[in-house]
Amino acid sequence: MDGMNLKQIVKDELNRSRFEHTERVVDTALILAKRFGADPVKAEQAALLHDICKCWSEEKLKEHIVRGDYPNDLLQYNKELWHAPVGAYVVQKDLGIVDKEVLDAICYHTSGRPHMTLLDKVIFVADYMEPARRFPGVEEVRQLAESDLDRALLKSLDNTLLFLIQKGMTVYPLTLSARNNMVEQVHQS
Amino acid sequence: MDGMNLKQIVKDELNRSRFEHTERVVDTALILAKRFGADPVKAEQAALLHDICKCWSEEKLKEHIVRGDYPNDLLQYNKELWHAPVGAYVVQKDLGIVDKEVLDAICYHTSGRPHMTLLDKVIFVADYMEPARRFPGVEEVRQLAESDLDRALLKSLDNTLLFLIQKGMTVYPLTLSARNNMVEQVHQS
Repeated sequence: MDGMNLKQIVKDELNRSRFEHTERVVDTALILAKRFGADPVKAEQAALLHDICKCWSEEKLKEHIVRGDYPNDLLQYNKELWHAPVGAYVVQKDLGIVDKEVLDAICYHTSGRPHMTLLDKVIFVADYMEPARRFPGVEEVRQLAESDLDRALLKSLDNTLLFLIQKGMTVYPLTLSARNNMVEQVHQS
Repeated sequence: MDGMNLKQIVKDELNRSRFEHTERVVDTALILAKRFGADPVKAEQAALLHDICKCWSEEKLKEHIVRGDYPNDLLQYNKELWHAPVGAYVVQKDLGIVDKEVLDAICYHTSGRPHMTLLDKVIFVADYMEPARRFPGVEEVRQLAESDLDRALLKSLDNTLLFLIQKGMTVYPLTLSARNNMVEQVHQS
């Protein structure tokens, strides 16, 4: 399936604002891929598809997860996490995407994971810092991403954890594992 | 072994400032135990013994953990965590304390754990808020502990996580599990 068809499929799956966000993530991911040496074709594809299930209802996502092969604890945590692994499954099954790097980058773009690949990092950070994002601390992530993808990722993960804790929300353990692992990587570099 | 002997043993194990901290934790734990219905004898004993290995050197703690039956990941995380489970082991083996509630309260007084007992909570919060503590946010914990031990504990855990993240330190996964579990308990109450 070529890029134009994929783009139309994504457009059909998302509402307008989510599709516009996706376009900005594609642009940002391509910039980061070029800057840090990731495969631009994979970066564009993963970015285009990363939120393909974002507009599914909570019920539809939950039904899918209950029936599928997902981590046992996923449904216990924030529903904002659910669309990512479901999206990875859907693009594999329904769109025939088989590249594991692309599927993983989609799967972990919200939670993160320990030992993230370069493509994982590009998609996570692009999603976090695309130009319309206004999170507290996003400008620092953008500045870090000018030269250091690992530090930009760590700051994105830190900001995410701080936000969830301050809001009284539970934190998915995989996100803490991703962040602890990045602390170690950044300190060793 | 009676309380006076235990107190002398603890005094001999700790330097002056750590022993004075221990005395303040005992006083605070007794207040909280009375306020929230915990066993005052167990609270006093656990508070008295909670830091018994705090003045051990990093090397001595590490050697002990390597040889003992401790969680596999303990040595990968902050060394400030180590004295607590080692202390629980030492008071059982060397002082003959066999009360599981007391041993658990000592073991988890720094990390926390999911499903903390009333005694666990009393010791954790007493250690966090004893009168000489000056952590940012400790006054809010003291105010919460006037009426709601669970919210005081959650705030202590939140403050601990925020501190570690802002300082760029790794976070022990058990502490996140403790905090996530308290979020759920507080929301359900």
